[in-house]
Amino acid sequence: MIRVGVIGYGYWGPNLVRNLVENDTTTVTVVADRRPERLRLVESRYPAIRTTTDAEELIRDPLVDAVAIATPVSSHYELALRALQAGKHVLVEKPLTHSTETSARLVDEAEARGLVLAVDHTFVYTGAVRKIHDLVRSGELGDIYYYDSVRINLGLFQHDVNVLWDLAVHDLTILDYVLPARPLAVSATGACHVPGQPENMAYLTLFFPGNLLGHVHVSWLSPVKLRQTLIGGSRKMVSYNDMDVTAPIRVYDSGLTLNADEESIHRMLVGYRTGDMWAPRVEATEALKAEVAHFADCIEHGRRPVADGQAGLRTVAMLEAATESLLSRGAPVELATAVGA
Amino acid sequence: MIRVGVIGYGYWGPNLVRNLVENDTTTVTVVADRRPERLRLVESRYPAIRTTTDAEELIRDPLVDAVAIATPVSSHYELALRALQAGKHVLVEKPLTHSTETSARLVDEAEARGLVLAVDHTFVYTGAVRKIHDLVRSGELGDIYYYDSVRINLGLFQHDVNVLWDLAVHDLTILDYVLPARPLAVSATGACHVPGQPENMAYLTLFFPGNLLGHVHVSWLSPVKLRQTLIGGSRKMVSYNDMDVTAPIRVYDSGLTLNADEESIHRMLVGYRTGDMWAPRVEATEALKAEVAHFADCIEHGRRPVADGQAGLRTVAMLEAATESLLSRGAPVELATAVGA
Amino acid sequence: MIRVGVIGYGYWGPNLVRNLVENDTTTVTVVADRRPERLRLVESRYPAIRTTTDAEELIRDPLVDAVAIATPVSSHYELALRALQAGKHVLVEKPLTHSTETSARLVDEAEARGLVLAVDHTFVYTGAVRKIHDLVRSGELGDIYYYDSVRINLGLFQHDVNVLWDLAVHDLTILDYVLPARPLAVSATGACHVPGQPENMAYLTLFFPGNLLGHVHVSWLSPVKLRQTLIGGSRKMVSYNDMDVTAPIRVYDSGLTLNADEESIHRMLVGYRTGDMWAPRVEATEALKAEVAHFADCIEHGRRPVADGQAGLRTVAMLEAATESLLSRGAPVELATAVGA
Amino acid sequence: MIRVGVIGYGYWGPNLVRNLVENDTTTVTVVADRRPERLRLVESRYPAIRTTTDAEELIRDPLVDAVAIATPVSSHYELALRALQAGKHVLVEKPLTHSTETSARLVDEAEARGLVLAVDHTFVYTGAVRKIHDLVRSGELGDIYYYDSVRINLGLFQHDVNVLWDLAVHDLTILDYVLPARPLAVSATGACHVPGQPENMAYLTLFFPGNLLGHVHVSWLSPVKLRQTLIGGSRKMVSYNDMDVTAPIRVYDSGLTLNADEESIHRMLVGYRTGDMWAPRVEATEALKAEVAHFADCIEHGRRPVADGQAGLRTVAMLEAATESLLSRGAPVELATAVGA
Repeated sequence: MIRVGVIGYGYWGPNLVRNLVENDTTTVTVVADRRPERLRLVESRYPAIRTTTDAEELIRDPLVDAVAIATPVSSHYELALRALQAGKHVLVEKPLTHSTETSARLVDEAEARGLVLAVDHTFVYTGAVRKIHDLVRSGELGDIYYYDSVRINLGLFQHDVNVLWDLAVHDLTILDYVLPARPLAVSATGACHVPGQPENMAYLTLFFPGNLLGHVHVSWLSPVKLRQTLIGGSRKMVSYNDMDVTAPIRVYDSGLTLNADEESIHRMLVGYRTGDMWAPRVEATEALKAEVAHFADCIEHGRRPVADGQAGLRTVAMLEAATESLLSRGAPVELATAVGA
Repeated sequence: MIRVGVIGYGYWGPNLVRNLVENDTTTVTVVADRRPERLRLVESRYPAIRTTTDAEELIRDPLVDAVAIATPVSSHYELALRALQAGKHVLVEKPLTHSTETSARLVDEAEARGLVLAVDHTFVYTGAVRKIHDLVRSGELGDIYYYDSVRINLGLFQHDVNVLWDLAVHDLTILDYVLPARPLAVSATGACHVPGQPENMAYLTLFFPGNLLGHVHVSWLSPVKLRQTLIGGSRKMVSYNDMDVTAPIRVYDSGLTLNADEESIHRMLVGYRTGDMWAPRVEATEALKAEVAHFADCIEHGRRPVADGQAGLRTVAMLEAATESLLSRGAPVELATAVGA
Repeated sequence: MIRVGVIGYGYWGPNLVRNLVENDTTTVTVVADRRPERLRLVESRYPAIRTTTDAEELIRDPLVDAVAIATPVSSHYELALRALQAGKHVLVEKPLTHSTETSARLVDEAEARGLVLAVDHTFVYTGAVRKIHDLVRSGELGDIYYYDSVRINLGLFQHDVNVLWDLAVHDLTILDYVLPARPLAVSATGACHVPGQPENMAYLTLFFPGNLLGHVHVSWLSPVKLRQTLIGGSRKMVSYNDMDVTAPIRVYDSGLTLNADEESIHRMLVGYRTGDMWAPRVEATEALKAEVAHFADCIEHGRRPVADGQAGLRTVAMLEAATESLLSRGAPVELATAVGA
Repeated sequence: MIRVGVIGYGYWGPNLVRNLVENDTTTVTVVADRRPERLRLVESRYPAIRTTTDAEELIRDPLVDAVAIATPVSSHYELALRALQAGKHVLVEKPLTHSTETSARLVDEAEARGLVLAVDHTFVYTGAVRKIHDLVRSGELGDIYYYDSVRINLGLFQHDVNVLWDLAVHDLTILDYVLPARPLAVSATGACHVPGQPENMAYLTLFFPGNLLGHVHVSWLSPVKLRQTLIGGSRKMVSYNDMDVTAPIRVYDSGLTLNADEESIHRMLVGYRTGDMWAPRVEATEALKAEVAHFADCIEHGRRPVADGQAGLRTVAMLEAATESLLSRGAPVELATAVGA
């Protein structure tokens, strides 16, 4: 049984605790939060779990094998570093940290000590994204031409991070997982409509080798909620609509005919689509349940998580470069080879 | 009665001729096209219309008051310039020409001679876009924060122009018409997936004064056809879906509450939308019919067209700058003040 | 504080208990269920609530002021009758009972004893249905012409009741609540596709005075899930899509122009819609929360519930008559005046 | 070359003439219409076609091999009968005639004379309906359980026929074509909301052998336009949305699991769908083009049309019986065996 200490019982912490409790190979021994009223909530729900306002004490607890961190991003680095130094496996909420420098430091620390460092990239554990991963990696789509994602809604303005770090982080973890290549450079644009606040809408282009293009559009200021991704390949294309409960994934035939004859050109002009469409069944299991099981499995068998520290570092590197580009109106920023590799 | 000569009887020419014939104050006296088989089509449909393979002869014809040009973009400048020099009013298919330099030259020529120079920015004559114009300009949306447009489908690859000049031109003519400001700079990214061909997908960000942001996403390589525009303002937001025949324009209340109290913040978090939505009726008249009537009216009463040479020039300037930015991976390109003004 | 005993802790019971516990003026003192494992669930969640396998004992408990019944429909009559005879107020899951005779008996018993008899017609407590009620009853729609409802999905086959008693019951409670008239007769058709099972799809027409027509289509055997209602009036029409989270209620102008002039007839022919559409904001509060508060209010102030025994009886009468008609291939069955009144 | 005379140049006639002219094996020699202004339209469009106000003269013309009738339904019988008696092949707009008696008379006359009698059941020549026919008849759907169709919009009120004869006729021609069985009885309900006018909304249930159920909902009084058909089988189900240009036909797996185990029952309860969905490409050729070619082929090779007089008679018999049932509030009306056979 893996004994986990959870730091932070705000929005995400309760989901983490519930899934860790329900998993057969993990148990939660202690929860830390600075706010006593949050701890009282833990106590009423889980009388057997110890609580503390002192994260440091949780980290040092010899009855804790692994630490799960669900606090604001600014505290991730300090907490994760101490937990690793205390010999604990670590699961951190995304994004891993607020900079590539600190993320790289955590990756090194975990490597040096042989500990599991996992990042809570929830989407890569959903049935839909795993299905897309299989479609891309099996070659069914052919050569990948582009990844285009829209994640917009009428959202609360975050006071500490811009919309890239709040929303685009999801898309970057997904494309990092499904695409077979690493980006070389990024160009981002955006705007802030509330004086003194971070950017509330942004567009981000990722340049990959071989003309593969990635694009993410995020906004807290849209009248409609959209969660729509398109992936184009030389043989097939995929549409992924996270808000369509009946057919979230749709696969389209024959997107492109380069040497089209007259007849098929005419058909493309008059018609809307030239081939069949297919909507595979998607597994509906809760992503966090699969993620917790995977974290436990990695600890038990010394495996590397799908969303490991390297994946966390790559995501932070893209966010950092995008924010830099955004400040210079889209001027491209190269991504370090070390990160891209 | 205004006597019009039409040059070019390919895809768009027949629509032009039909609308010019059906309008009460215009008539078509001659049609020119290099292809005899296209002219035979004219003859069978309109026995009273004279035909010629020589555009120059049409332009010199004293029985022609105005010339409508529906040829490939590369020939627009030469034909329009000669027509103006011959003292004819001119209606040119969009984009006006292939460069700001030539567009500016046409604007000057028309100004100097007191002739009408109109550009076929069809969308600005649709009921939907005129409704949006009224919503924006009446102040009903409040301060305008952004204009976001998606125009993607599985399209034929154009061999002579990139996807910006083929598809984004529509969005640029619309935003030039509805927005109350002119852009200062542009950043564009894109990719080409067929060796030797122009870019088939592109993203374009326009920077306006005061944090107003414009963005256009165009592609010939999408498995689904989308024609979707969002316009966000401080008071209301508009969604314009050109493929929704029943409710293309939707107006949403209360997009943003900056000084939200606790209760309304909670409501925004749990709900999808905080106010009413309203879908006004949109006039369904054919845009080209309204455009032809407007062209005739401008000639008769010496008025300036809604889509005049200046609008055509501004659109070409945006396309030119965007193409330049696209070649340097999104590095921003400033738009000349003269054009922006 | 109103002390409630809840009988039945299967699918619906837990929701009832939770809402009764969270309401400020009600408390749950005891829960009865024949299955000890269901009672253990109650005990772990609510240590302060007493449990019993004996419903009779719960009913006789002097610490119980009101009894909520969430058991299979076949047991509703016996349990509700005993509770009323023991002087308790009663809330019964829908449908009230399995026959008009027994429903009428409960209505009489509650009347004679001055007790509150409420039926769990959940939909009449939703924001959407209350909005429709206001639109219909305020006269905004004009004269009501029809009520048309579709409630189909791929459902589990119920072994004890046909699809009318399982699904159409929802639509009948809604139309009973919103329409200003009572039906005179019913015609129903349907089919069973599994030998030995009750009907799994059915169509039901209700005839009201003055050409108002009601229709309900229900099925457990549809590949798509639909929850769609249309209500047509002489001035406006309403569409209610329970699966559209952003705009469930849509109100359309000018459905019908009886003395249309030529111009508007042409517009109707070419267009899809002749007026504006309006989607009012709909309150998102949980229906059962409002229902429990209303039940408590009725007990405290001696008021009659919106969904009282009479409403329960009228619903059962429609279901009973529809089932009779269904057995004779749609032959119309008159509804007793007493019920319709 | 088959020489065709067309009677009636109103709404449908021009489409017929155009397709007959464009077909390689048919030609139009004469068009008849009582209204001289309609004939002038023919003359301006087709100078080579003779026109007449006298249908009788057209029928007697020895240069006419076949007669196409596109007049109001009340005149179909007389015109078709005379044409057959004059030895001409006949194509009649749907419905064939206004009664089973007259339809049967036409069928007999054509049989006796060995002439082709075709009815313009346009939908059976569309790519979508032919695809459905293949899916049903190949056994891919398994046993057919039901056919459910909705065809509603805001329509002009017809003054001479009720909504069944105007709209339901389409659905009845489709189900007559795709279903493998003939109906035994019909129950219909409906209402009229304009005094002195025919019914403007109606519901129609068809009872087939073996629990196959058909249902059609038609209305001229709906705020939204729907063209939606569902066909349920024991193995697969089909949804056909005539307004969805990208994926009109969708095929769903595993509609029904009769001996479901616990795990799949749970999946059905929590999920929306249990299998894959597949949207085959649908041929986009104009239906009337295919229909005209088929008519010519039947004449040339002595074949029986897909939509022959028998199909026309069966459709009229269903409409006649449905209208009778509608007048008695859904009381079932049996369909004559002769017709059903």
